[in-house]
Amino acid sequence: MAFINDDFLLKNETAKRLYHSYAENQPIIDYHCHISPREIAEDKRFCDISEIWLGGDHYKWRLIRMLGVPESEITGNCDPRVKFLHFAEAIPLAAGNPMYHWTHLELKRYFDCDLTLRPSTANEIFDCCNEILRSPQMSAKGIIRRSNVKMIGTTDDPVDSLEWHEKIAADKNFGTLVLPSFRPDKAVNIEKPGFADYIKQLGEVSGVAVSTAEDVMKALSLRLEHFCAHGCRAADHGLDYAVFSPAPLSEVNEIFTRAMNGKAVSRSEAEKYKTAVLVHLGREYSKRGVVMQIHYNVQRTVNSRYTALLGPDTGFDCIRTAECSSAVTGLLNALDSENALPKTVLYSLNPADNELLDTIAGSFPGEGGIQKVQHGAAWWFNDTKSGMEAQLRSFANLALLGGFIGMLTDSRSFLSYTRHEYFRRILCNLLGEWAEAGEYPDDEESLKAIVEGVCFKNAEKFFGIE
Amino acid sequence: MAFINDDFLLKNETAKRLYHSYAENQPIIDYHCHISPREIAEDKRFCDISEIWLGGDHYKWRLIRMLGVPESEITGNCDPRVKFLHFAEAIPLAAGNPMYHWTHLELKRYFDCDLTLRPSTANEIFDCCNEILRSPQMSAKGIIRRSNVKMIGTTDDPVDSLEWHEKIAADKNFGTLVLPSFRPDKAVNIEKPGFADYIKQLGEVSGVAVSTAEDVMKALSLRLEHFCAHGCRAADHGLDYAVFSPAPLSEVNEIFTRAMNGKAVSRSEAEKYKTAVLVHLGREYSKRGVVMQIHYNVQRTVNSRYTALLGPDTGFDCIRTAECSSAVTGLLNALDSENALPKTVLYSLNPADNELLDTIAGSFPGEGGIQKVQHGAAWWFNDTKSGMEAQLRSFANLALLGGFIGMLTDSRSFLSYTRHEYFRRILCNLLGEWAEAGEYPDDEESLKAIVEGVCFKNAEKFFGIE
Amino acid sequence: MAFINDDFLLKNETAKRLYHSYAENQPIIDYHCHISPREIAEDKRFCDISEIWLGGDHYKWRLIRMLGVPESEITGNCDPRVKFLHFAEAIPLAAGNPMYHWTHLELKRYFDCDLTLRPSTANEIFDCCNEILRSPQMSAKGIIRRSNVKMIGTTDDPVDSLEWHEKIAADKNFGTLVLPSFRPDKAVNIEKPGFADYIKQLGEVSGVAVSTAEDVMKALSLRLEHFCAHGCRAADHGLDYAVFSPAPLSEVNEIFTRAMNGKAVSRSEAEKYKTAVLVHLGREYSKRGVVMQIHYNVQRTVNSRYTALLGPDTGFDCIRTAECSSAVTGLLNALDSENALPKTVLYSLNPADNELLDTIAGSFPGEGGIQKVQHGAAWWFNDTKSGMEAQLRSFANLALLGGFIGMLTDSRSFLSYTRHEYFRRILCNLLGEWAEAGEYPDDEESLKAIVEGVCFKNAEKFFGIE
Repeated sequence: MAFINDDFLLKNETAKRLYHSYAENQPIIDYHCHISPREIAEDKRFCDISEIWLGGDHYKWRLIRMLGVPESEITGNCDPRVKFLHFAEAIPLAAGNPMYHWTHLELKRYFDCDLTLRPSTANEIFDCCNEILRSPQMSAKGIIRRSNVKMIGTTDDPVDSLEWHEKIAADKNFGTLVLPSFRPDKAVNIEKPGFADYIKQLGEVSGVAVSTAEDVMKALSLRLEHFCAHGCRAADHGLDYAVFSPAPLSEVNEIFTRAMNGKAVSRSEAEKYKTAVLVHLGREYSKRGVVMQIHYNVQRTVNSRYTALLGPDTGFDCIRTAECSSAVTGLLNALDSENALPKTVLYSLNPADNELLDTIAGSFPGEGGIQKVQHGAAWWFNDTKSGMEAQLRSFANLALLGGFIGMLTDSRSFLSYTRHEYFRRILCNLLGEWAEAGEYPDDEESLKAIVEGVCFKNAEKFFGIE
Repeated sequence: MAFINDDFLLKNETAKRLYHSYAENQPIIDYHCHISPREIAEDKRFCDISEIWLGGDHYKWRLIRMLGVPESEITGNCDPRVKFLHFAEAIPLAAGNPMYHWTHLELKRYFDCDLTLRPSTANEIFDCCNEILRSPQMSAKGIIRRSNVKMIGTTDDPVDSLEWHEKIAADKNFGTLVLPSFRPDKAVNIEKPGFADYIKQLGEVSGVAVSTAEDVMKALSLRLEHFCAHGCRAADHGLDYAVFSPAPLSEVNEIFTRAMNGKAVSRSEAEKYKTAVLVHLGREYSKRGVVMQIHYNVQRTVNSRYTALLGPDTGFDCIRTAECSSAVTGLLNALDSENALPKTVLYSLNPADNELLDTIAGSFPGEGGIQKVQHGAAWWFNDTKSGMEAQLRSFANLALLGGFIGMLTDSRSFLSYTRHEYFRRILCNLLGEWAEAGEYPDDEESLKAIVEGVCFKNAEKFFGIE
Repeated sequence: MAFINDDFLLKNETAKRLYHSYAENQPIIDYHCHISPREIAEDKRFCDISEIWLGGDHYKWRLIRMLGVPESEITGNCDPRVKFLHFAEAIPLAAGNPMYHWTHLELKRYFDCDLTLRPSTANEIFDCCNEILRSPQMSAKGIIRRSNVKMIGTTDDPVDSLEWHEKIAADKNFGTLVLPSFRPDKAVNIEKPGFADYIKQLGEVSGVAVSTAEDVMKALSLRLEHFCAHGCRAADHGLDYAVFSPAPLSEVNEIFTRAMNGKAVSRSEAEKYKTAVLVHLGREYSKRGVVMQIHYNVQRTVNSRYTALLGPDTGFDCIRTAECSSAVTGLLNALDSENALPKTVLYSLNPADNELLDTIAGSFPGEGGIQKVQHGAAWWFNDTKSGMEAQLRSFANLALLGGFIGMLTDSRSFLSYTRHEYFRRILCNLLGEWAEAGEYPDDEESLKAIVEGVCFKNAEKFFGIE
């Protein structure tokens, strides 16, 4: 079979029919990503393929680094062509890696390029892509427009003014909703350097004189209010590991005071503070109909030497395998037991947690909406063909697959919308496989409903996009 | 391929031959389930399909709840037809879910119904099933008889008089053995509410004046004796997580006394008491040839709000991912080192424990019987097509698949015997796949021996059913 | 399909082409195994198939024990034919077990025997194999020679004189490099019985008067020097679980003194000592270009009764599922942050750690070489078809599969080189599957480079074999 043809990943006739009839043309709800609202507002243009592809994508940096290439030729100030050539060296060795597929999907969809990337084709591809990048269709907004994106949920700090979101909203010619997501990690991570400074900034921005943990919560509520006024539909928490360690507010305030005074906070103290803030925010999300996303089991910046050079989010993170099962249920139950559990999406970076998360989700059903608590799409390192299949199978085994809100890019790049295509192909292939094996009836209406739901309609409803 | 046809799940010719020649007609040994001996003894009749299907099955309740349906229309006193319609709404969204398959297998096998359940067919199916339920063949005993069940192992509390088992045994026209299994969780769970009251009851029933942990053990031994006199072949322990924390008996007695006096017992104290009771019971099982089953890594009743309304075992349980590897080996070794390890079946609700359990089983071989310690069939949330395949592959990779005791329903419903069919199809498909790929010789005699062994004969021998 | 034919495990045409063109004839670099250098040096001859197959292979003992056979007829002094017959009883029940495949591959490749092992063929196979074992081609060196092995990395204690390695090197007619690997577990496991005696021996052999932990490190460095002088390319650490617990050297010395005086060392103290020794050795490996292998998550000798009879490494080990994610990253980072991280290969016995290890490896890239830190081949209990596929998929998903150093036997038997064949077939099948599905281009040159790299060339380079 030709490499990445029209029926890429669609291994049976039903899969092909489902994909081409019902999945392919659905709009995209990209409810969680890391692209820059400023770059959208300014309708950023890209000088060359290295800038748009390799400029901020630490997935690709990791892959090139595994070749043993000097860092200066990856993230340094060297010739963009040299960087691109290194990427072209890595790619042929990356058989089975999703980056192999994403790379070639992006070349086809955005650059109409059918070449296979390798050292011998790299120069031709580099020049051809750069030529195409000069077209106005390849600006930030241009790419989003042609990718049929209905909504983008960016990831924003509570202290953000959201001015860029306002500017985007003011452009009536731009049809895509770009909505902020509330990501208050810096106010939660009491044990991390910079906490006290951040809290001061939060106090200033929110107009709250912060002297207790309660004041932090008050300030966060005000900022959430501000976010909601700008269309925020989702919050997001990135936790090293899930916590649930309830403590009296007085104790939480003491722990907070100690941290603000620069004193060390123990692991168990940090967990108490975090629990208090998370429970408070969960209530606030519930009140406002904001979806709570929890991402956990990450080890961030594990390589001190590179982190000192390049800072965080540069490709030195990995999986954590902490046992968090009772912390996750404890947190959800604390909220649910006071009828304050918001819609929730759970993600663990440890793929061995798949079934755990689906069974937790099923234990907090919540009247009034389908799959109120969900296991989120295969996240980060799991965002591979086999990782997505594992997540989909686990979801299907343990819940209503037809209620799944589906894919998100989680990306820093404007070219990543092909990941929705990748996901949709995998979804349709799985459903087609079941239908052709007689494990699900070959019932067009039901299959269509599941495909359209998971690709678009469920997320549209879950996040309240009209 | 037609949905759930004769060759459902059998994807190659060898699989079809193996299933239809050697698996399909084997009797069933359902050595672990939760059906009510009283309902068997009274040969219960069912008013409607909602009663027999949705009356006590929390798997189905969970699925309907995920739709967001009000609880009153799931477990409340509403019209049985309304409940059934909700189930019919959920099912089309449950592609890939084993409940999709079980539902339609049960419709075919017990109601001769080939319709696909969905809202538009629900009324017809409801009426047709209710009609058939009026037939005497659809009484509790009728269903068991037509399902070709040779033995049923119920799950019983040590304080149970076993009167219903006696009544069943007295019916000489009923060919199925219904044997009690000893499940002393309430005497083990020292930290749970109701412990002291339960112990008093145990003392009364057993005629032991219980004032120490040793007395509890004595009382349990007497009850086990009573169970064995009623044909008990297996015991079962449901543990939140596996424990092994040996302590002097004097300390265990002190911990027990504290609990009986209503004082709080710490986690580590509870583990010491539990270890003492488990080791004692292991010895007793070994003496009497009773199989010890250990089920662990569960979080039970994690949703306080619903548990307050509905009580335990109503669909609010989930996986736990506790690290128990050294506790499991510690417990088995303590028994084995005094030649007192009974036949043992190990189950974890965490599917990531599959290989762990198979390697533990292989470390306690025991002379005199095949696979004396075994990894049990895919349990509860893992009882899915992919979950069963994973358990079978892990067992095959690490042990003698031909010695596996196979499937059990673990069910509360009389219609669940089709799960044995489901399992047998998956088993035959896997063996057929290996034989057709040249990974196992196409040797009818050996394949037949494995199929018949795993479907029936191994369990028959392991549990001493003649 | 015929059982184990030429295209065994090769399910598509590309796979067949890749295997037969590029994989089959590559030499073997068996960089980690447990065969005896003395037996090579003495060019050992084997009396019968039971001696060479069942004499030291605890994988096979486990399988036979699962039948319930008396130990005397497995490892005792009974008739070799009886032992062989028991193995022949177990094998037909072992469908899906890699031992089924290894057994028949070894019969074909070394004994030109096409029979399927079962009780009815056992006598014929026993006699025929014994006949062939009389040939000089079936001596230790003969087997290695015909297996096309370029290098063997044995596993050796630091106190070993390496005299047998010298003797092997002196045989200029023997073309295989047999190099020692440095395995200092006994100097690391401060909490295990025999530690103090071992340290005394280490002091004597190295000529260091050992009175502190620093002296231990010095002695180990001297022994490593000795190993390097004999061509050592790799070290190996077998840890129950990964540790990283840095402490001041003075504290480490105190802990060491206590252990040498026969006093108990707590778990956390042992971790501190181990961390200090591991970090020291990591630096030494880095300096000398020695590859550091870390094997962890094992429970060893969990069955006290059998261990008392038979000693360690007799088949009573199993998986551990300890949470070690931050310990592994901590250890690597401690070394990397002082530019002293050696080439490293990480292995966990818990298959749920696959993705963890690949993401850790990707966080420590190291300039100057491809995949400096790697996730090692599927280890021990994971060394099955599905286990290898899982390891390869995880590696491919998260790293550059083309940079993988591939397979090792980890074996105690001279007939295990067929495991490389087994691995190569699985690798080619996976690549062929991707190419034929259009998930990797059908580009002969790139596929060839990956196959030759993973089968041979990458290990040749990684371990510096010229």
